[in-house]
Amino acid sequence: MKQANAILLLSCPDQRGIVASVSNFIFQHNGNIVHAAQHTTQTSKIFFMRIEWELDGFDIPREEIGKAFMPLAGRFNMTWNLHFTDYTPRVALFVSRHVYCFHDLILRQTMGDIHCEIPVVISNHRDLKPLAEHFGLNYRYYPINPENKGEQEAEEIAELKRHKVDLIVLARYMQVLTGDFVNLYRNRIINIHHSFLPAFAGGKPYEQAYDRGVKIIGATSHYVTESLDDGPIIVQDVIKISHRDSVEDMKMKGKDLERVVLAKAVKFHLEHRVIVHGSKTIVFE
Amino acid sequence: MKQANAILLLSCPDQRGIVASVSNFIFQHNGNIVHAAQHTTQTSKIFFMRIEWELDGFDIPREEIGKAFMPLAGRFNMTWNLHFTDYTPRVALFVSRHVYCFHDLILRQTMGDIHCEIPVVISNHRDLKPLAEHFGLNYRYYPINPENKGEQEAEEIAELKRHKVDLIVLARYMQVLTGDFVNLYRNRIINIHHSFLPAFAGGKPYEQAYDRGVKIIGATSHYVTESLDDGPIIVQDVIKISHRDSVEDMKMKGKDLERVVLAKAVKFHLEHRVIVHGSKTIVFE
Amino acid sequence: MKQANAILLLSCPDQRGIVASVSNFIFQHNGNIVHAAQHTTQTSKIFFMRIEWELDGFDIPREEIGKAFMPLAGRFNMTWNLHFTDYTPRVALFVSRHVYCFHDLILRQTMGDIHCEIPVVISNHRDLKPLAEHFGLNYRYYPINPENKGEQEAEEIAELKRHKVDLIVLARYMQVLTGDFVNLYRNRIINIHHSFLPAFAGGKPYEQAYDRGVKIIGATSHYVTESLDDGPIIVQDVIKISHRDSVEDMKMKGKDLERVVLAKAVKFHLEHRVIVHGSKTIVFE
Amino acid sequence: MKQANAILLLSCPDQRGIVASVSNFIFQHNGNIVHAAQHTTQTSKIFFMRIEWELDGFDIPREEIGKAFMPLAGRFNMTWNLHFTDYTPRVALFVSRHVYCFHDLILRQTMGDIHCEIPVVISNHRDLKPLAEHFGLNYRYYPINPENKGEQEAEEIAELKRHKVDLIVLARYMQVLTGDFVNLYRNRIINIHHSFLPAFAGGKPYEQAYDRGVKIIGATSHYVTESLDDGPIIVQDVIKISHRDSVEDMKMKGKDLERVVLAKAVKFHLEHRVIVHGSKTIVFE
Repeated sequence: MKQANAILLLSCPDQRGIVASVSNFIFQHNGNIVHAAQHTTQTSKIFFMRIEWELDGFDIPREEIGKAFMPLAGRFNMTWNLHFTDYTPRVALFVSRHVYCFHDLILRQTMGDIHCEIPVVISNHRDLKPLAEHFGLNYRYYPINPENKGEQEAEEIAELKRHKVDLIVLARYMQVLTGDFVNLYRNRIINIHHSFLPAFAGGKPYEQAYDRGVKIIGATSHYVTESLDDGPIIVQDVIKISHRDSVEDMKMKGKDLERVVLAKAVKFHLEHRVIVHGSKTIVFE
Repeated sequence: MKQANAILLLSCPDQRGIVASVSNFIFQHNGNIVHAAQHTTQTSKIFFMRIEWELDGFDIPREEIGKAFMPLAGRFNMTWNLHFTDYTPRVALFVSRHVYCFHDLILRQTMGDIHCEIPVVISNHRDLKPLAEHFGLNYRYYPINPENKGEQEAEEIAELKRHKVDLIVLARYMQVLTGDFVNLYRNRIINIHHSFLPAFAGGKPYEQAYDRGVKIIGATSHYVTESLDDGPIIVQDVIKISHRDSVEDMKMKGKDLERVVLAKAVKFHLEHRVIVHGSKTIVFE
Repeated sequence: MKQANAILLLSCPDQRGIVASVSNFIFQHNGNIVHAAQHTTQTSKIFFMRIEWELDGFDIPREEIGKAFMPLAGRFNMTWNLHFTDYTPRVALFVSRHVYCFHDLILRQTMGDIHCEIPVVISNHRDLKPLAEHFGLNYRYYPINPENKGEQEAEEIAELKRHKVDLIVLARYMQVLTGDFVNLYRNRIINIHHSFLPAFAGGKPYEQAYDRGVKIIGATSHYVTESLDDGPIIVQDVIKISHRDSVEDMKMKGKDLERVVLAKAVKFHLEHRVIVHGSKTIVFE
Repeated sequence: MKQANAILLLSCPDQRGIVASVSNFIFQHNGNIVHAAQHTTQTSKIFFMRIEWELDGFDIPREEIGKAFMPLAGRFNMTWNLHFTDYTPRVALFVSRHVYCFHDLILRQTMGDIHCEIPVVISNHRDLKPLAEHFGLNYRYYPINPENKGEQEAEEIAELKRHKVDLIVLARYMQVLTGDFVNLYRNRIINIHHSFLPAFAGGKPYEQAYDRGVKIIGATSHYVTESLDDGPIIVQDVIKISHRDSVEDMKMKGKDLERVVLAKAVKFHLEHRVIVHGSKTIVFE
């Protein structure tokens, strides 16, 4: 059976000796590094690292690694977190009526391409319940209107906590989350927007793209912040269109883009490849 | 020797019989159609067509084709123009200090990939004079400042008229043209902007892209209008970037994009493949 | 309700007057052309056309259009066929064990992105039966071995005829069809191959790609002929890979490519956009 | 003024402690690592690394770094080499008649996008001499025929040695080099081939692509080996084509692809980002 690995994500002010110290820490405890990637920002001189090593043979029990690492982390003033590849992350999918991103994520999870559990699906509509239930998923219906929004979000949060959810994926969920909700799951809510942001933020990107006469359309997956469509971008991609494409054509072509772009972002997050730095991301592909 | 073709670009309100009438007109005069493409806008129901036929065997002399076509054009209320492939269009290049788009266009023209003459190169700097002159080009230096702008543009326009210029290409020309200038050459001035418009209009698109943390950068060629970076888009393309790319890296990667996107737009225009419709283009590739 | 259109696909030796004659035929019977595209091969001078017009107002009843068109077709020595957009094509899906192309096509058909019925799913394995049945599809299991191949194909063909199947899609079906089978459905069987053909034909393209150290991998959808992986190509696309990608990584990345490339080819075929010409295709996108 | 960096490229059988040992070596001598990337092959378990650090502050003089590194290299059985970023590599361009790759490389070198000197241009034709001389390049004409090939190659090699050439770039050079020549400059000769290898090796790739009816064409830059078009691939890219593209159209479209793909490979090589491993490359982008 495949052994688990440990993954350390860290950032700190750049200085001499970080790579040496971290790799020594792993080596002295008999760890075998299987991946390492680093990045230093050019102007602000912040150092970022993702390092993965085999737990097999590593002489610190996994529950004590964090404690053992703390002195080193303190010396370099690191922000860091530690993950284990045999933990199965728990993902909540938020959906409305569009089926394609939802379906796509379920399929990838079923095939094992995305490593996670889906303990709950939350929706403000009933439409996708039968499909969810065919796949054995727990579908929870929370209709939202201006009056009940706070209340319903409180219920949703209770549901998320009950299921110990690690990541929320908005798979074309058509409600804006409140700032309080977002704060609870900061950098743990991924949205898909159907344009190459910052162009065409808001609810009608394909209509805007049609009116402007652009020759490419795009999709953007990003972490959700209080500002609509303005969070740190994880993945973007585009396809070419022409004058022949109506808004309907764009919507259809965009579906393939949206689902691939969202799935990539979810996969990167679940594999601990993303570090958020201010309004931007470092993605160790 | 290869015979010339005639190319007719037309638009009119859609109705039954346009294709039949136009193709009959050509056939009855013994013309052989070599390309035909059409498009009808979905909502406004405007019909657009590009049709190309061989002059060899066509029984109307080329100078009388327009007159002969007029009754038909009148019946359908067409806007139209007629071109001949053995005419060599006359292109003025406007440049500032960046060499790559300029160099690229010269090279393509020299190799015969772009069919045109370049009777004049106009610049607000002296930097590219030696290169222009190596290629035997007529380089005219018009330094611009807020005081002399109107005057210098008048000189430039005189120069353009003297050379019977058909198309102006702003190959990274860093001056904004006045509305009067633009009006004289409406839909005959092509600019290259170094972003995927409408994102990042203005003078610092790579800096903006860096700050926003996008994962793709783009380039846009468009006809120039009074509104900066807002004219009808002809060609767009993008490349992927990552957190590792500094503003300098983007600029370097963008160069390849910019020159290809500009060259494509110029080629489409010179081959009479573009019809401007309001703020958008129909491009019959 | 949206009215039906007629679509005519035709090819013939190029000569003067084809476009005029065909568009006149439609116009004189009061048809409104909504799309028209043509192509003439450069060396062999064969003319190809796809023309679509509204049946609403057209003064020939649809069952007599073919007869009415025959004299014109005869005059130009045309090969042609006629389709109506309100007919729902009948597609048989052939699958083995891989689920992603199958799932993807079902989803697109359910969402209405691909216009067809799926009267039967045929497989040499039982694995995908539950999924098919969840979507209400008729799943027929025909295990194949060298001894029973002829017999089983005869049964499959009977099944296909019973369901009046217009198009067969091999959605990662891992059996080679016999020449007799292929002949019965010439240019009506679409396969997806997981490489950019002609590179890496055969059963192990990702392994071959890995060994050769290529930096891009691809997928190809094509009509099936007697020669394995050698039929007329309909759609191809690629993605970039690097030295970091194992064969498993390529397989995962390839899935997204394969399903999009296959779906595009199926859609083009069902919209009567493809004409096969020898070993190549004309695709009127 | 920007200080120089050292770049170490190394490979060895994978084992615990390599990253720690190498980064310690640099840290203990007070070096600041600015980039580090590594890769381990999945099956053969070979470890590859590229590590770059600032010489400023590093306490070993540059001419003694190699000697100081040797014990560590020996312990892990490393193959390695060491470069300094303030050395300007010396590149010989080999050309025939096609101008576009040649022109493109000169332009990039002139603009500073590619960091190298070009002490000599070698050609079997006189055509590009004027262009080379306009840019102040030393153009050497060595016409080749079956009789004089060995002799002329000997002269070319003498020329290359005289100019202490580090890298040879075949910018559409239409002669096959002998095995002896290739052996002298193993993994230091880069060629551009106008197809996505392994498809369409040989002299007529666009003609082959046309005949096969592919929907994408490509370009491949690779190190030259004795086997034609079969060396380790450095960069590949493709563009989409359609049935409308003649062989001439492909050649024109391919030019943009070829020059970008070749320039990228040259840049990667000159920045010491490429390690050849058997018939494949590791490219630390």
